[in-house]
Amino acid sequence: MPQHKISPDSPIGIFDSGIGGLTVVKAVQAGLPSERIIYFGDTARVPYGPKSQVTIRKYAREDTEILLKHQPKLIIVACNTVSALALDVVEQCAGDIPVIGVLKAGAVLAAEKTRTGRIGVIGTQATIGSNAYTCAILKENESLEVIPKACPLFVPLAEEGFIDHPATLLVAQEYLSAFTGKEIDTLVLGCTHYPILRRMIEKITGPDITIIDSAEAVASMAGDLLSARNLRNPGKETAIPHLMVSDLPQKFRELYRLFMGSDLPDVELVEV
Amino acid sequence: MPQHKISPDSPIGIFDSGIGGLTVVKAVQAGLPSERIIYFGDTARVPYGPKSQVTIRKYAREDTEILLKHQPKLIIVACNTVSALALDVVEQCAGDIPVIGVLKAGAVLAAEKTRTGRIGVIGTQATIGSNAYTCAILKENESLEVIPKACPLFVPLAEEGFIDHPATLLVAQEYLSAFTGKEIDTLVLGCTHYPILRRMIEKITGPDITIIDSAEAVASMAGDLLSARNLRNPGKETAIPHLMVSDLPQKFRELYRLFMGSDLPDVELVEV
Repeated sequence: MPQHKISPDSPIGIFDSGIGGLTVVKAVQAGLPSERIIYFGDTARVPYGPKSQVTIRKYAREDTEILLKHQPKLIIVACNTVSALALDVVEQCAGDIPVIGVLKAGAVLAAEKTRTGRIGVIGTQATIGSNAYTCAILKENESLEVIPKACPLFVPLAEEGFIDHPATLLVAQEYLSAFTGKEIDTLVLGCTHYPILRRMIEKITGPDITIIDSAEAVASMAGDLLSARNLRNPGKETAIPHLMVSDLPQKFRELYRLFMGSDLPDVELVEV
Repeated sequence: MPQHKISPDSPIGIFDSGIGGLTVVKAVQAGLPSERIIYFGDTARVPYGPKSQVTIRKYAREDTEILLKHQPKLIIVACNTVSALALDVVEQCAGDIPVIGVLKAGAVLAAEKTRTGRIGVIGTQATIGSNAYTCAILKENESLEVIPKACPLFVPLAEEGFIDHPATLLVAQEYLSAFTGKEIDTLVLGCTHYPILRRMIEKITGPDITIIDSAEAVASMAGDLLSARNLRNPGKETAIPHLMVSDLPQKFRELYRLFMGSDLPDVELVEV
């Protein structure tokens, strides 16, 4: 159980199974620019989705412990898999430190925004197969209807930098045709990579469907929580995030630029 | 060191990090229909490519030991990563049992077939980054020139079943444009998944470029080796392969049909 004292100057800790959680870092930076951010991406063991629950819970504990060494005032779980299967492990490990999962944040916001009560959710095969978004949305309001659709090619297309590529458009049109005639008015981007493809997705779904970006949802929830506890950092300067990863893949610099739109700062390599 | 006696009736053992090696199973079945095949796909730990060499060598030993329990007369390493980084581990573990790696088989055939001496190689980021095909081809003939190109989206596109899909055509055109003006006359499919996309690749490269399918190359090398040692199975019946995997992913049945063009037979789940 962590014993450290938290203050407005303490950092926000964010972790993910890999680099996808950088979209959460970006959203938190945009919404709360003066907050210090500590990010851990478990790039050595990515992806978590296809692994067993026992393993995922073990990793979730280890990832949380890495962040706790930096005495955060809040922990954000940017990983959908951990949010779905091991949030309780993170909470237990974090003790008094509050914990927010990306999945719940997206589900709460979608349930709030929908008018027709029909919500689409897109994510990886693992996330969609786990039914976690559907459960989380129905927990908010059991009269809602959720239409899930796995989009397995979105992560590799985004990581390849095929953002405005005609091939991505064809793939996206095919995947999103699953919502044709389903009368959804809200679509949850249930994977941390998907905000990168948001403009293309919006082009296809059109102006009548509200896109819920789980990264933005979690950033907004984090702001509310810190304000309520008088833990907002009063500083005026924009802080550079402290990045930690468990492996430095060849393409990391390129992917960082893709996710963050800026050059890679120093990165700390952490053994897991 | 294995002590078992091998005979023409012994099976051929084949292993891969996942399901991609099924293209090798298919090629061996086509070339040597009466041979019994034991296949192990390490679906729980796939992919090997991004892992450290220490880990890959440990897995290679374990995979070989799983096959050795079935007393094979030959071991085929269908995994490009193991072929590149741990073939010596497999050979040491296999003792007197001969071992053929998919990478060398492809390299030897490419060096044999080229007339202009300019060979293109496509593969995953891990395989191309390792430079293993280039080294293996130059070992055959150091005057040859090798032009490598990583095609990271081919595996996800193939696994999604987007075989004749216009999105795949766009992606393939973009990747293969790396060879425009390079005057290659031979192109090695340096990934076990790629034979699935062969027709589309051939459509783009045209009739003047010889495609080297590493799966076919390794099957042909296996036939030669067994004939030379009088170990060909004289039977007339087509044997059904014995399949072992370390995890049964949701999509396994579908992927088996995609790779093999037939329904999934019984599969044995093996713990690793």
